[in-house]
Amino acid sequence: MATEFMGKEFLLKNETARHLYHTYAEKLPIIDYHCHIPPREIYEDRRYRNLTEAWLGGQNPDGSYFGDHYKWRVMRSNGVSEELVTGNADPYERFRAFAAALEMAPGNPMLHWSNLELHKYFGIREALTEANSREIYDKTADMLQHDPNLTVRGIIRQSGVEMIGTTDDPTDSLEWHEKLAQIPDLGFQVCPSFRPDRVVNIQKAGFIDAVNALAACVGKSQLRSVEEVIDALYARVDFFRQHGCRASDHGVDMFPYRECTMEEADDVFAKAMAGEKLDPEEAEKYQTTVLLALARKYRKENIVMEIHFSVSRNNNQKMFGRLGPDTGFDMIAKSMCYQKLANFWSALDATDELPRTIVFSLDASDLNQLASSIGCFQSDEIPGKMQLGAAWWFLDTRDGMEQQMKALGNLGLLGNFVGMLTDSRSFLSYPRHDYFRRIACNLLGQWVEDGEYPEDEAALKRIVEGICYRNAKRYFGLE
Amino acid sequence: MATEFMGKEFLLKNETARHLYHTYAEKLPIIDYHCHIPPREIYEDRRYRNLTEAWLGGQNPDGSYFGDHYKWRVMRSNGVSEELVTGNADPYERFRAFAAALEMAPGNPMLHWSNLELHKYFGIREALTEANSREIYDKTADMLQHDPNLTVRGIIRQSGVEMIGTTDDPTDSLEWHEKLAQIPDLGFQVCPSFRPDRVVNIQKAGFIDAVNALAACVGKSQLRSVEEVIDALYARVDFFRQHGCRASDHGVDMFPYRECTMEEADDVFAKAMAGEKLDPEEAEKYQTTVLLALARKYRKENIVMEIHFSVSRNNNQKMFGRLGPDTGFDMIAKSMCYQKLANFWSALDATDELPRTIVFSLDASDLNQLASSIGCFQSDEIPGKMQLGAAWWFLDTRDGMEQQMKALGNLGLLGNFVGMLTDSRSFLSYPRHDYFRRIACNLLGQWVEDGEYPEDEAALKRIVEGICYRNAKRYFGLE
Amino acid sequence: MATEFMGKEFLLKNETARHLYHTYAEKLPIIDYHCHIPPREIYEDRRYRNLTEAWLGGQNPDGSYFGDHYKWRVMRSNGVSEELVTGNADPYERFRAFAAALEMAPGNPMLHWSNLELHKYFGIREALTEANSREIYDKTADMLQHDPNLTVRGIIRQSGVEMIGTTDDPTDSLEWHEKLAQIPDLGFQVCPSFRPDRVVNIQKAGFIDAVNALAACVGKSQLRSVEEVIDALYARVDFFRQHGCRASDHGVDMFPYRECTMEEADDVFAKAMAGEKLDPEEAEKYQTTVLLALARKYRKENIVMEIHFSVSRNNNQKMFGRLGPDTGFDMIAKSMCYQKLANFWSALDATDELPRTIVFSLDASDLNQLASSIGCFQSDEIPGKMQLGAAWWFLDTRDGMEQQMKALGNLGLLGNFVGMLTDSRSFLSYPRHDYFRRIACNLLGQWVEDGEYPEDEAALKRIVEGICYRNAKRYFGLE
Repeated sequence: MATEFMGKEFLLKNETARHLYHTYAEKLPIIDYHCHIPPREIYEDRRYRNLTEAWLGGQNPDGSYFGDHYKWRVMRSNGVSEELVTGNADPYERFRAFAAALEMAPGNPMLHWSNLELHKYFGIREALTEANSREIYDKTADMLQHDPNLTVRGIIRQSGVEMIGTTDDPTDSLEWHEKLAQIPDLGFQVCPSFRPDRVVNIQKAGFIDAVNALAACVGKSQLRSVEEVIDALYARVDFFRQHGCRASDHGVDMFPYRECTMEEADDVFAKAMAGEKLDPEEAEKYQTTVLLALARKYRKENIVMEIHFSVSRNNNQKMFGRLGPDTGFDMIAKSMCYQKLANFWSALDATDELPRTIVFSLDASDLNQLASSIGCFQSDEIPGKMQLGAAWWFLDTRDGMEQQMKALGNLGLLGNFVGMLTDSRSFLSYPRHDYFRRIACNLLGQWVEDGEYPEDEAALKRIVEGICYRNAKRYFGLE
Repeated sequence: MATEFMGKEFLLKNETARHLYHTYAEKLPIIDYHCHIPPREIYEDRRYRNLTEAWLGGQNPDGSYFGDHYKWRVMRSNGVSEELVTGNADPYERFRAFAAALEMAPGNPMLHWSNLELHKYFGIREALTEANSREIYDKTADMLQHDPNLTVRGIIRQSGVEMIGTTDDPTDSLEWHEKLAQIPDLGFQVCPSFRPDRVVNIQKAGFIDAVNALAACVGKSQLRSVEEVIDALYARVDFFRQHGCRASDHGVDMFPYRECTMEEADDVFAKAMAGEKLDPEEAEKYQTTVLLALARKYRKENIVMEIHFSVSRNNNQKMFGRLGPDTGFDMIAKSMCYQKLANFWSALDATDELPRTIVFSLDASDLNQLASSIGCFQSDEIPGKMQLGAAWWFLDTRDGMEQQMKALGNLGLLGNFVGMLTDSRSFLSYPRHDYFRRIACNLLGQWVEDGEYPEDEAALKRIVEGICYRNAKRYFGLE
Repeated sequence: MATEFMGKEFLLKNETARHLYHTYAEKLPIIDYHCHIPPREIYEDRRYRNLTEAWLGGQNPDGSYFGDHYKWRVMRSNGVSEELVTGNADPYERFRAFAAALEMAPGNPMLHWSNLELHKYFGIREALTEANSREIYDKTADMLQHDPNLTVRGIIRQSGVEMIGTTDDPTDSLEWHEKLAQIPDLGFQVCPSFRPDRVVNIQKAGFIDAVNALAACVGKSQLRSVEEVIDALYARVDFFRQHGCRASDHGVDMFPYRECTMEEADDVFAKAMAGEKLDPEEAEKYQTTVLLALARKYRKENIVMEIHFSVSRNNNQKMFGRLGPDTGFDMIAKSMCYQKLANFWSALDATDELPRTIVFSLDASDLNQLASSIGCFQSDEIPGKMQLGAAWWFLDTRDGMEQQMKALGNLGLLGNFVGMLTDSRSFLSYPRHDYFRRIACNLLGQWVEDGEYPEDEAALKRIVEGICYRNAKRYFGLE
């Protein structure tokens, strides 16, 4: 025994891994091309009062909740009462309950992420436990309130972030992105990402409002047809593009694909706008029409299309009623939509209108399938045009990352992988890139030491730097 | 080379693992909360004549078969004739054929379980092979017939078993449980578990008989409605509770969930009782109604609800005709019922009527999904209210156990896991707890040595003792 | 650092593995019971001009393409233009582009397979890279053109191949097999395999032509009923059997099973022959009828039935239009047909007409299911009558092979496994047997060194020789 917990060589289990990480990966800048942080807080250079606010959050003035629902789940799994999880309990007591839950979490990435953040931003090397939670709470609160490197911008800068891709509704004014772009010495780019889920997912609550908001946003009293919806979306894509948009994002429970005429799509749209219930096939027709149109536009505007699927949301009615969405009651869905996804890509590729695409599934048992599927649509536009996205959400674990990289390695070219993103709502989560880099270097290093990949320094440098930084830079046109 | 086969440090591949196992796990008592052993044989303190009888069994006077169908499958996969597998061949010849099959079984848990039993109960350290099968057969037969520690009770006592949860039909008189409870120095508890599958699985053969048997059991000539079925079941739950019942168990091929009115359920019930064939949606309506009612009762009576699913039974018609059910012709089913299960839990939780639940799937590719699903229904009643059950049946292998613990570790709190059960029909199978404990300690030890969990003796002691013993004791209210 | 890339002990990570491989596995002959090489090229003892022709192929005079579509996918994933992948670009430039893509392929079996071929047939030990591609291209071209051991027959002989199972349409004249059988000192057997997919997959394009070709082949003007189709197929099975056929092969996207009367099957057949579109249930009825009939015949004639499923083909319409089938645009399908497969086997076993069967799925998440399913249909005809096929196509990777062997080990008897096949269109692919043998020995060796399998030299010799060679020899009746 006597092993340092999460020491300097954390996750680097072989000499080559340590060499690759410390020589190439460790100090590379970060392209965080997909996250959920509010640009306003960057502009205002927000400060957090303590780790409870930064990690566990609380209730917004409008009654909605902010904070990290991954952490809330960890707490609930330890039998912690909701009062301490999302409620108005004493901030330190909430922090203490979280620390106590972490002790029961061997194997959970939250244990690693939390401690990596303590290492990186607060210089704290001992593992967070219930016993030392008071001391750590006080020390970090003091630093968060006073350290000049611990404002939101300070955190981003000291993390080496070069580009942040936020996630934005098509109706967003992008005012904060605009203001940020005017700051001469900001030191990093903040690019909006186009996420029109609310007007694509016609079968979900809020669709009518979303369409009307989109209409208003393009100066119309209403949108009368699918073509008008598409035109409005195109206008907003143009607007986003002018503000530096590099990527779009589509979150769907299951990927829809059902070809239809514009007339059929219009009928479905009219029905939905009249408040009538759609059957799943109808919803799919509308979704397919709009998604195909958007994909064509992305291709034209050089915007990456991200697809996130295989998720089932808001599974606990009681807690949904109490806390609303995105509060830790989602789960993996096992999807059978792979053929639809391939047909969608094929329809676009048939006319050379398939955009660069990154596909993410929550289900580890999809990884091989998706890795084999993207291999049917590669092209000479760019190496790795079609990407198997990094391990996401419930799959964003050490095991999940290894599975994703092995699937891609076995079935495609790992060397062209665009790598990690935080997908986070927190400004403190950049160490997840470090976590990923260690895991990637460890895997590559192991293959080298096992004689499965040549010990070719130039090739390894190129692959490591590519996966950790350069491939994403090229892929998102940031060079 | 020169490695001891299944030696003292079997499966303990790192120093921390060896420390945790020998210091904490090895000598803890056993809570075997789910198995299929007959309480009558405990009361009568049965003796087996030889290992063929204990392991391979044979035919009962009523024509049904007893014995371990896991072992029968191993034999059949080696081309052994049915005469030796379940037939009337010479007992030693049957044993020899099993030993020969084991030699072809690298990677199969049966190789390990069988040899662990030889180590534990017979002091035999050399691997069972065809060559030494005569010698081992004779020695073990002699011990089984004469050793005072090798009666059924002797085996249970020397195994350190504190509690046994049997599996019982609602109509069971529980006479043997009652008699066992009256033995002052028995040294362990034998608790019935409520398993009403026969009156829940309305689409299966034998339903009408089962309903009529239930009616008779509560002193009625017949049950005329679903409400009367539920009332009868409630009466039996009360009876079981009075006899120390801590758990219920539900075996379903796929988990059903389809809400309906009581009238609809009654129509389906009437149809089934009239011998008419139901369509799957009808069956689901009845099942949902009864399962929701039972779950509410379990919650009220503090009874754990176990759910076993993703199994396809009796796949070989010919052998089913010859040998009947539970004779080794079942297989993994790939289920898509995860959303139904979540909806079932949500419906119960909405009114605070969700009981403590342990869910088991046969399909390893379900583990992440289930681990994410239970995370939507945790509460502050008890840490780990919703449990991902230990690797079960075809998944009950070293690889399966590691997958289950990694899924739970990645997506929930492994520290709150209630751990292992034998699910066995054999009195000799307690070493499976030892097998599990070694695997659990090995996993935890590896994480510590890799710097992925702190080397915190108190926390590790708590987790190891929790997973191996204390969590189950707390969960089943045995403290 | 300083590890030899793919050295003498490649993939053999423990001492026992090295012992087992070098002592038993390495020099055993090869039974390559399933591949796609043209027997004509063996008869003509073809020579390749260079590795581009041998590996990447090109266009046939009839406009179709030959070559290894696995390699084409690797190139496309690296952004290589189709002109270099399958087009008329300069052969060395094509080779160079492939070599460059390999550098980006850590974890991909293509990196290993290609370099194993360079080791084995050309004595080249340095890893192929873009930098040394010219030198390697020239050297291998010279050897391919002049080395007497590098004609097709020379390659087969120096690889130690004892038997080759080709894949042949029922209408094939088998003239090349016949001519090969007349060569007294050929040194290996070339057996046809019966693959009647074109007349089984009634829902696919080309069915009518295939039926008419079959009619012509048995001297009829047309086939008027399913019975006539079956009779014609039986006649061809007899013909194949006379030419040494040992195996049949069935490629289906999803395995069909829907019982029906012969009248119903005839109706579906008539509809298809009239060019009408079938619904999926209709197609299944015909397929089931023909597959059951064929299986019965195989059983009678002692022919192994191979089943390959869970594949989705020709997913890129544009490229299908340009290049046709089998050009690298296929993917894994996630199948839910496991119950149909089991019902098919049960129907056959009920009358003792189930042939020896090897089942292959593309989906790793099927492996446990299939391993549990075959366990329901074993018999005393031969150990391991029902086989879980070796990791196939997209699963034919180091990880895939380990998963397949672990699934079989956990749930069946690995010792009875019939082992590897190349499934290849290339004469240079025999080192894949070597790759497999190393992985198998490594797995077994690790279990021995971990004390999980006895260090029993005789048993290990028997298992290793069995998996690598003797089990297949026995299974295909080649003893």
